[in-house]
Amino acid sequence: MTMTGPEPLRVAVVGAGEWGKNHVRMFAQLKGARLVMVCDLEEPRLADVRAAHPDVRVTTRYEDVVRDPAVEGVVIASFAAQHYDQARRALEAGKHVLVEKPMTLAPGEAEALVRVARQSGRCLMVGHLLLYHPAVVKMKHLVTSGDVGEPFYLYSQRLNLGRVRNDENALWSFGPHDVAVAVHLFDAEPEVVTAKGEAYLQPGIVDVVFVTLHFPQRKMAHIHLSWLDPHKTRRTTLVGSRKMVVFDDMEPNDKIRIYDKGVDVRPQAVSYEDYLHVRFGDILIPHFGTTEPLRLECQHFLDCVRTGATPLSDGAHGLRVVRILAAAQKSLELDGAPVTVKG
Amino acid sequence: MTMTGPEPLRVAVVGAGEWGKNHVRMFAQLKGARLVMVCDLEEPRLADVRAAHPDVRVTTRYEDVVRDPAVEGVVIASFAAQHYDQARRALEAGKHVLVEKPMTLAPGEAEALVRVARQSGRCLMVGHLLLYHPAVVKMKHLVTSGDVGEPFYLYSQRLNLGRVRNDENALWSFGPHDVAVAVHLFDAEPEVVTAKGEAYLQPGIVDVVFVTLHFPQRKMAHIHLSWLDPHKTRRTTLVGSRKMVVFDDMEPNDKIRIYDKGVDVRPQAVSYEDYLHVRFGDILIPHFGTTEPLRLECQHFLDCVRTGATPLSDGAHGLRVVRILAAAQKSLELDGAPVTVKG
Repeated sequence: MTMTGPEPLRVAVVGAGEWGKNHVRMFAQLKGARLVMVCDLEEPRLADVRAAHPDVRVTTRYEDVVRDPAVEGVVIASFAAQHYDQARRALEAGKHVLVEKPMTLAPGEAEALVRVARQSGRCLMVGHLLLYHPAVVKMKHLVTSGDVGEPFYLYSQRLNLGRVRNDENALWSFGPHDVAVAVHLFDAEPEVVTAKGEAYLQPGIVDVVFVTLHFPQRKMAHIHLSWLDPHKTRRTTLVGSRKMVVFDDMEPNDKIRIYDKGVDVRPQAVSYEDYLHVRFGDILIPHFGTTEPLRLECQHFLDCVRTGATPLSDGAHGLRVVRILAAAQKSLELDGAPVTVKG
Repeated sequence: MTMTGPEPLRVAVVGAGEWGKNHVRMFAQLKGARLVMVCDLEEPRLADVRAAHPDVRVTTRYEDVVRDPAVEGVVIASFAAQHYDQARRALEAGKHVLVEKPMTLAPGEAEALVRVARQSGRCLMVGHLLLYHPAVVKMKHLVTSGDVGEPFYLYSQRLNLGRVRNDENALWSFGPHDVAVAVHLFDAEPEVVTAKGEAYLQPGIVDVVFVTLHFPQRKMAHIHLSWLDPHKTRRTTLVGSRKMVVFDDMEPNDKIRIYDKGVDVRPQAVSYEDYLHVRFGDILIPHFGTTEPLRLECQHFLDCVRTGATPLSDGAHGLRVVRILAAAQKSLELDGAPVTVKG
């Protein structure tokens, strides 16, 4: 008798486009999974899948995914506008679901998905990739360990000059990443959101956005999103009372720098100069894992399905992000007026 | 008979602190000026001036500056709260005035200065140093020549971990620079301003601010100011329809990069992919003068006094900047609500 692990989870991937094809590749590789079906509307993409994975069933009809009892988990990487309907039908059919971000385009839809997942007892996870990025895992650890002190604020830039989308604006396309990271690092929900943006290339499709999230206890996250910029930038700076941490995802290796810099407040000081003492310290470039974040994310999905654990980026987290994005969208439409995030 | 130039302008410098001492140095050097008096409240600073410039009269009383008929021009580098009173008294005494930024702390005071300067027929100039920086002169030229195409938006970061002020917040301390540059490059006044910020180090003194200026025709300027940051940053990015320009003042030499990158909109295209064409082109690092901006600014003041020309950063420009800062301050106090700039 040989030792065998648990049966691999039989997975269908829906949407094999720019990003979805990475899910196809990953679930075809992962030990805990077996890729059994790929669904896409475009025949040439299915032909590519057929060539690379002859055993995998391909289809253009989403019903095939939902109806096939051989499919246990559905990975949804289709257009954002389809996420809600597809995730709901998969959950109702008793499948576990990993849905790409944004989870849905409206908070009501996200709430419905969370409810349906609870009723069906199935795993619902959102593809907030950065939460599984070793650099963000490290940042989160620096926060929870107390290393950065009180986390004051973060700001991030996600800028590009590359793919201009016509199906969603820069807020919904890029925003979920940084909003998810801010909520994760502060472990809180913002109360108020403001967003200012403009549509320079296509009427009505905002391509440059500045978003500010106001969290309780004066914490703040500022997010600059643009696909009309000379620099390809993916950088997040977290400023704490004791340390400052910079995560630059465009750096090939040293993605995180920890600055032992700050301003010490000494309430007992006699003069103003002593009261605020600027501290210039070492810069530490910590070593951490370099595993592909998507692999870690997909593995986490498989682990949660097997053990029944709650994913780090579960439906509740995805709902939080959608609520914030919806508030930001409303603020955009109100030309920057503060909008309360409805919980 | 020998050829002689015009008589040098007899100048008094008021405030010989961190920044004012640069004015002392500059006006002691410039050919068109003669430094005749330095006024400061702190004796040790005056002792330094006395040691370096034995012929220059020093005083702790501002009245001495105003009353001395030998003083023709007054350079005000005192605390911002004193600018209005000192500039007004100097103008009323018939002196030409170069006042440091911010020109005043309230729009009404700035309006009064513009009025008094007009009545007295004297030169009123504000020390918006960046307008005289060769890199900004170059950027302005790229805009007016049509090189960048339609200027869409700019964003700038002015971040530091250094001197923490207790007499003014980050908005009034750093903001005048970037606001002045935005108004100058767009040659327009914003209609609406939003600002979000927090005071992390000292109660009530905002040390991190995000400001957005909305100009007519969808132009936008976003300004990030902080003295609580691991990076010392002074960078402005201007995105136009044809080119993008980055001015990084922390670069020792190549302070400007011109990116021949952009997205061409082709209204006649048949497919979406053809409609928006992303263009990746050369990066040009232009050569331009390296003269110290303060020297150019001070020389401009002397030239304007001599010729009667209107300074680039005249009272009207300074008033515009103060109006915008006041609107941003109000937005800060309203927690980010949009505030109309009153003209």
